[in-house]
Amino acid sequence: MSAIEELIRLIKHLPGMGEKSATRLAYHLIRSDESYNKALGSAIASIKEKIHPCPICGCYTEDDICQYCADGQRDKTLLCIVEEPQDVLSIASSGAYNGLFHVLGGAISPLDGIGPDALSFPGLMKRIEEGTFRELIIATNPTEEGDTTALYIRHLLKDRDDITLTRLASGLPIGGDLGYADKLTLARSLRGRVRL
Amino acid sequence: MSAIEELIRLIKHLPGMGEKSATRLAYHLIRSDESYNKALGSAIASIKEKIHPCPICGCYTEDDICQYCADGQRDKTLLCIVEEPQDVLSIASSGAYNGLFHVLGGAISPLDGIGPDALSFPGLMKRIEEGTFRELIIATNPTEEGDTTALYIRHLLKDRDDITLTRLASGLPIGGDLGYADKLTLARSLRGRVRL
Repeated sequence: MSAIEELIRLIKHLPGMGEKSATRLAYHLIRSDESYNKALGSAIASIKEKIHPCPICGCYTEDDICQYCADGQRDKTLLCIVEEPQDVLSIASSGAYNGLFHVLGGAISPLDGIGPDALSFPGLMKRIEEGTFRELIIATNPTEEGDTTALYIRHLLKDRDDITLTRLASGLPIGGDLGYADKLTLARSLRGRVRL
Repeated sequence: MSAIEELIRLIKHLPGMGEKSATRLAYHLIRSDESYNKALGSAIASIKEKIHPCPICGCYTEDDICQYCADGQRDKTLLCIVEEPQDVLSIASSGAYNGLFHVLGGAISPLDGIGPDALSFPGLMKRIEEGTFRELIIATNPTEEGDTTALYIRHLLKDRDDITLTRLASGLPIGGDLGYADKLTLARSLRGRVRL
């Protein structure tokens, strides 16, 4: 197999890459700056060595504990619970949240064989018992799996009347158009942020 | 800048990659197999060292001359002229062509400041003078620039009555639907392969 064919074969394994787009990308790299290719290649090859999950919240970090858990300025009464590590970045970069995070590692999905045991609920419960949280914002995806996971967390915390459980509001995307919204989204947008 | 941010920044420089898709790809790589990341990273970093243009036709190769120029079994009376090196792969993998290739390195585009001097016409003329070609298949793109380039080649060869110039047929894509074809494509499809 030639070097180009091998490069195309490897690129095709990335999500969303078919034969055509992988070929286009490979030829783009041949025309690219050599120093850029070396930087990108080295960043890809070394990312897993540099990154590991934060032992407290589960988001990715290069340090002993992540920047959010280590930041004394963040609100320790607020905990935002997400499915995946990248969700932490999405919410943090919205600029509208200054509390702590907890990464579950997925959502409950019986059809995919993912039960509560596969997710980091023990770590979550330990943090809640030892912490000073007043509100848990359950920021799982607005899908059946995400909703199921939110309900499971409500079940786990049914005896903790001192902690408020909230869910991210679903509704119209900013810049969206009422005419293009599906009925479910529209119905949700009428209700706004829902107390569980 | 953290390792993830740096990886996202580098991925964003690839064509068709925005902030969201670069972030998704970076997090995918974090979850990927380490050996795959190392293979992909190394393939990207080393591609420009391994590959260079064939000194005869201009397509990319790892050898002194490319597999098509080196192949004694190919029809030396047929020359297919393309814009970019990747076009050689597209045409070769169609399985419908067994002649030689010539890569121009682009198409004539006065608006982009690309005149005939920027393309490999001297090499093309030298090959035609020294070669045994009976037909030149001008496989530049079916665009204004590609058509201009085809007309320029006809101009260069106006005294060579012994060589037939042809152009790839434009028309309906296989599996396409008449109802979805634009008028220009439909008009071209009525004419079929056009003699210049």
